Amino acid sequence: MKVTLIGFGNLGQGLARVLLEKEEYLEKEAGVFLEIVAAVDSGGAVTDEGGIDIEELLEAGESEDTVAEYLDGGEKGTSALEVIRNVDSDLVVELTPTSIKDGEPGLTHIKESMNLGKHVVTSNKGPLVVAFQELEKLREDTGVEFRYSATVGGAMPIFGLAKGQMSGDSVSEIRGVLNGTTNYILTRMSEEGAPFDVVLSEAQELGFAEEDPTLDIEGIDTAAKVTILANAFLERNVKLDDVDVEGISRIGPKVTQLARDTGYEVKLVGVANSDTLEVGPKLIPSGDPLAVKGSLNSVTLKTDLAKEITITGFGAGPRETSSALLGDIVNIYKSVGG
Amino acid sequence: MKVTLIGFGNLGQGLARVLLEKEEYLEKEAGVFLEIVAAVDSGGAVTDEGGIDIEELLEAGESEDTVAEYLDGGEKGTSALEVIRNVDSDLVVELTPTSIKDGEPGLTHIKESMNLGKHVVTSNKGPLVVAFQELEKLREDTGVEFRYSATVGGAMPIFGLAKGQMSGDSVSEIRGVLNGTTNYILTRMSEEGAPFDVVLSEAQELGFAEEDPTLDIEGIDTAAKVTILANAFLERNVKLDDVDVEGISRIGPKVTQLARDTGYEVKLVGVANSDTLEVGPKLIPSGDPLAVKGSLNSVTLKTDLAKEITITGFGAGPRETSSALLGDIVNIYKSVGG
Repeated sequence: MKVTLIGFGNLGQGLARVLLEKEEYLEKEAGVFLEIVAAVDSGGAVTDEGGIDIEELLEAGESEDTVAEYLDGGEKGTSALEVIRNVDSDLVVELTPTSIKDGEPGLTHIKESMNLGKHVVTSNKGPLVVAFQELEKLREDTGVEFRYSATVGGAMPIFGLAKGQMSGDSVSEIRGVLNGTTNYILTRMSEEGAPFDVVLSEAQELGFAEEDPTLDIEGIDTAAKVTILANAFLERNVKLDDVDVEGISRIGPKVTQLARDTGYEVKLVGVANSDTLEVGPKLIPSGDPLAVKGSLNSVTLKTDLAKEITITGFGAGPRETSSALLGDIVNIYKSVGG
Repeated sequence: MKVTLIGFGNLGQGLARVLLEKEEYLEKEAGVFLEIVAAVDSGGAVTDEGGIDIEELLEAGESEDTVAEYLDGGEKGTSALEVIRNVDSDLVVELTPTSIKDGEPGLTHIKESMNLGKHVVTSNKGPLVVAFQELEKLREDTGVEFRYSATVGGAMPIFGLAKGQMSGDSVSEIRGVLNGTTNYILTRMSEEGAPFDVVLSEAQELGFAEEDPTLDIEGIDTAAKVTILANAFLERNVKLDDVDVEGISRIGPKVTQLARDTGYEVKLVGVANSDTLEVGPKLIPSGDPLAVKGSLNSVTLKTDLAKEITITGFGAGPRETSSALLGDIVNIYKSVGG
């Protein structure tokens, strides 16, 4: 199967590294044969319909140059859209940065790929937040496969779970700790009693929080994930604006410690059911599957048979996200028979 | 697809109830058409190759009679093996009680079904504990489908997960709180400081512990599950005797409370990796995904990409177990195309 990578930052490089590392396993044990035929970054593209040498591609990624500058035959200035249109490829992996405002440029990349009959795997929340139903309809109309496990919970196989093994269950509610940065901050406040600002700046120094942490601490990132989950599992047709959002910037260490002393933890929780779409700080009893610490994420699905199933894992990181991307790719490969 | 139920106690009735309840959903939305053509209990069988009326079958289950006594045309004294051999059926659901000593009668039922080209779904740990590799080989040789999600963790979709969405990941270790009875006892000792014997007898009164709780509290049930997980995920060829087992009967409330005061919980944990196979009480930090309370079960898979993924849920109960059984049945249906 010929694969095009749109976006070759941390995630694209992480996926390429995993494809290289797992090539033998995938071919010999799983019977999955993949070739990267194009990789695009902000400076241009490198393409080879016979398959790009992944080691060279990774060297380009680790260099200060764009892939087009670093590699022989690189095409400076060639856009993702041109590559999607012109390179013969079965599957497009869309890994550009998320815009929750208009979903671009990912939304256009995904729609164009589908219209050309190419399967799509993405880690990009933006297109799903702004146009979930439109993309699902386009998927149906074009008959391609479209998977987005990496958009919520990094390595946590939430989508595969509910649509695979638990396909006899009906999901009525999803509750989750869906943002590692805020969970890290709340955990340290609870354990050490340090003030919000101090923990936030230490988290920034350690790389656990972005320089501009607004999307995380104000709950917007969690709300984007709640939007995707509500559309995917509850067949709702909702947008980001439909979510009631409150962040954690008003939470102090007195609250987190008092909570802990009385057997609770304060967590930033997103909830979606048939009535409610909300994100806000909540008291979760210690020992509840959502009361996980540090940068862990955790999602509870309420269903009619299993009652409650929770998945916990690392919600971010290029290698963890590669687990979700590779799982999606392998599943598409098997579903379409290569 | 024609389905034979071997065993019609709590689990068999729970599954029949769910099949009735979900019939419309399964047929109209999932495109899955199932008919129960035989049900066998200790007193005989009822068979109908045109499909048994599930409501009548459930009435028989709720009565004091065996199915053969209660229903017209019931065949008193007909054995499971006779039904497996003589009734035209695509799938056998084996739900007889577990024997961890010789795996019987389930082992013979499963082998005979496979040899006759019938797919098998089971909740019975016994056959897998005593003959995992033999059954896997028979599955390969006969080309039938064989699924056993319900043997470990009730509704928790552990097997479907690792073999489905996470199929790109390689699992190196499994750690789990795999027994709800012991987790309930340890949680109450930790929270209330009540002695082991008191909590155990209350658990027995409430139906959370068996009259003879030895298999649970001595860790044997957990060891059986560890054996299955090690064979299934780590490609080890191990038996129950290979597991080092220590139970919880020597744990007192002083230990559980001291642990809690220092930020830990005492849990009965099973561990399987390439070197180790063990079950015993361990200190788990509060906030760890395994530090779940009450009768919850929780399993952490260590993998090369996702690092650690944990699934938490209810490990027992007829309805929860039906989630796993139905998931297996639906997946077989889809895999073989009905």
